[in-house]
Amino acid sequence: MSLPHHLRSENEGGVVTLTLDRPERKNPLTFDSYAELVAIFRAAATDDAVRAFVVTGADGNFCSGGDVHEIIGPLLERDTKGLMRFTAMTGDLVKAMRACPQPIVAAVDGVAAGAGAIIAMASDIRLATPRARVAFLFNRVGLAGCDMGACAILPRLIGQGRASELLFTGRAMRAEEGERWGFFNRLVEGDVLAEAQALAAEIAAGPGFAHGMTKRMLAMEWAMGVEQAIEAEAVAQALCMTTQDFRRAYEAFAAKRIPVFQGD
Amino acid sequence: MSLPHHLRSENEGGVVTLTLDRPERKNPLTFDSYAELVAIFRAAATDDAVRAFVVTGADGNFCSGGDVHEIIGPLLERDTKGLMRFTAMTGDLVKAMRACPQPIVAAVDGVAAGAGAIIAMASDIRLATPRARVAFLFNRVGLAGCDMGACAILPRLIGQGRASELLFTGRAMRAEEGERWGFFNRLVEGDVLAEAQALAAEIAAGPGFAHGMTKRMLAMEWAMGVEQAIEAEAVAQALCMTTQDFRRAYEAFAAKRIPVFQGD
Amino acid sequence: MSLPHHLRSENEGGVVTLTLDRPERKNPLTFDSYAELVAIFRAAATDDAVRAFVVTGADGNFCSGGDVHEIIGPLLERDTKGLMRFTAMTGDLVKAMRACPQPIVAAVDGVAAGAGAIIAMASDIRLATPRARVAFLFNRVGLAGCDMGACAILPRLIGQGRASELLFTGRAMRAEEGERWGFFNRLVEGDVLAEAQALAAEIAAGPGFAHGMTKRMLAMEWAMGVEQAIEAEAVAQALCMTTQDFRRAYEAFAAKRIPVFQGD
Repeated sequence: MSLPHHLRSENEGGVVTLTLDRPERKNPLTFDSYAELVAIFRAAATDDAVRAFVVTGADGNFCSGGDVHEIIGPLLERDTKGLMRFTAMTGDLVKAMRACPQPIVAAVDGVAAGAGAIIAMASDIRLATPRARVAFLFNRVGLAGCDMGACAILPRLIGQGRASELLFTGRAMRAEEGERWGFFNRLVEGDVLAEAQALAAEIAAGPGFAHGMTKRMLAMEWAMGVEQAIEAEAVAQALCMTTQDFRRAYEAFAAKRIPVFQGD
Repeated sequence: MSLPHHLRSENEGGVVTLTLDRPERKNPLTFDSYAELVAIFRAAATDDAVRAFVVTGADGNFCSGGDVHEIIGPLLERDTKGLMRFTAMTGDLVKAMRACPQPIVAAVDGVAAGAGAIIAMASDIRLATPRARVAFLFNRVGLAGCDMGACAILPRLIGQGRASELLFTGRAMRAEEGERWGFFNRLVEGDVLAEAQALAAEIAAGPGFAHGMTKRMLAMEWAMGVEQAIEAEAVAQALCMTTQDFRRAYEAFAAKRIPVFQGD
Repeated sequence: MSLPHHLRSENEGGVVTLTLDRPERKNPLTFDSYAELVAIFRAAATDDAVRAFVVTGADGNFCSGGDVHEIIGPLLERDTKGLMRFTAMTGDLVKAMRACPQPIVAAVDGVAAGAGAIIAMASDIRLATPRARVAFLFNRVGLAGCDMGACAILPRLIGQGRASELLFTGRAMRAEEGERWGFFNRLVEGDVLAEAQALAAEIAAGPGFAHGMTKRMLAMEWAMGVEQAIEAEAVAQALCMTTQDFRRAYEAFAAKRIPVFQGD
């Protein structure tokens, strides 16, 4: 598969690292890179060679979001249908990130702004350096905070009050705030990408089918009552009990070995 | 419009400051002030002269809630229909606060108790002094914590476990706890009202139509799955891309100016 | 009622303390203790002698979860129907804990793992010692994190990002993290069981009918829009205004006495 010039993908032992790579402009997104990212996450749904993702940006920044000249300018020329096509396409990226069964770890350094903030938000786990700054700055370009799922996902990460402030003001969330509020799982002083890859590798060594089920249910149960959620989990977990990985874990435990999961 | 004796309203450049003003009793609510607050927030839905609200209380306290003698006593004389009329009216205040498109910033000093705690909770953003104490003390008067939306909104601000403790015990949340838990966005050592007005003015200078959409979606997406939320945001944001404010932002950016939003 | 050998129940003034008591194995659950716990919480729904629960474990640990030899081994021999019967039974415990009207306070020391972590999570309020370690380690035995409602409840306690990390890695949440994230309401240096019992007694002295309504609505409103939630609360609170406890509170207030609630 031929990637756009500004996106790199490397698979190391089942952990695919996606690097937004146009550092001279802080790794903005273009129409091409949106489309490619959607394609990558969608293809992963049936690709056993991918067990986890790491998403990051090159050279000290995560992603500066939609490029003003390459995206915002052209949008002003579009008609209604063309606008919907754009917002549906950006939304498709978050849908594809949530729908792929592999956990996604974001490694955030420097700027994560606009759609860049969204990509961090739409990941499953987020590590950052103390230099990270995350800005949902849609209001600064005259738009609403409800972009690519932000009004649904951000409050569930950091609470409704903090999300409201960030979305109404567009101000940057500092790394320390992000950790304290639950946006970042951990701050890393040193090589955040290496730490994210190590965490992704640890998760990738786990039971892959079960991980996919965990991810699916974490999203599905947002809009369920507690009784329905428990019912849905009873079915999902019974299914996981029929996998070989469940048997492998028990047999390893009985033999006082570490289990080696295969994902089936 | 003639306001009840104990409620003041001032519009300063589009920021309307509502002050509960009966300081000798810590600014309680009465049947009249409930009705008036509902009317104010409802009227704002179509009033372009209002771009943000600040809610506060006079003289060192926010609001002591429903007055025991003027509200609780008379409720004991009511029949079933009369009780429902009261709880529907108090609920209407929170509905009106959530339904008005303008962001609401609460400036909390001293006591915020009962319905006073609810008014702070139902705002979009909350600033407080270190003296603020917020008590959902419905259990202390023999009632349930499910008052005016508290069991829905409070857990989304501070988490289900902390909300449960506050609603079962009625104990006051201290200012420092409130900030740490995400109820308060920030503590202010000095003039909390001035800070709240400055924040509201900053928000009021933003894209008003888009802000209204952000507010609407922040509420609407509570009970949606993530896919539906993304779809809904795609439509909402495409609509915002047809506003003049979106064009103004781009043109200002291209000309290296600060955009001046008009709200249309 | 004859309890399984490894579960103790004591009612002290309306506060029922349930102690998982098999300390030599860190208080694991068995098929018998699951069934008994479900029966206890279900029976409480109509038992006026129970006003609050405390759940704890004996001798320095909370609960090590499903016993590997007594539960996981036998599950490997079960057919599809048998697996569903097990997951439905474990889910029934959380359902029974959420459905019983009495608030449940967990007192957590030492290990809370697997189903033990779930029992803490499914309680209404959680106190812990600094030694507490809570591990949702389902992935370690080859299973999904969606066990007994975890993907629904845990994100609502500590946020979606932190819950995701715990469920994908199975790592232990330390006591200090748990308090900071909102899982634990408070850490107790000394006798956590005594503190939990004191808190439960304080809650038990409150308006019982109203408490049951608070608990019900805290769960019911997860999957409601804010308008529906406010409507539902208006009805629920109007009902609570017809109880004697509401009148008792007002009369005590008027007479400058402390109200004595009866739960009706």
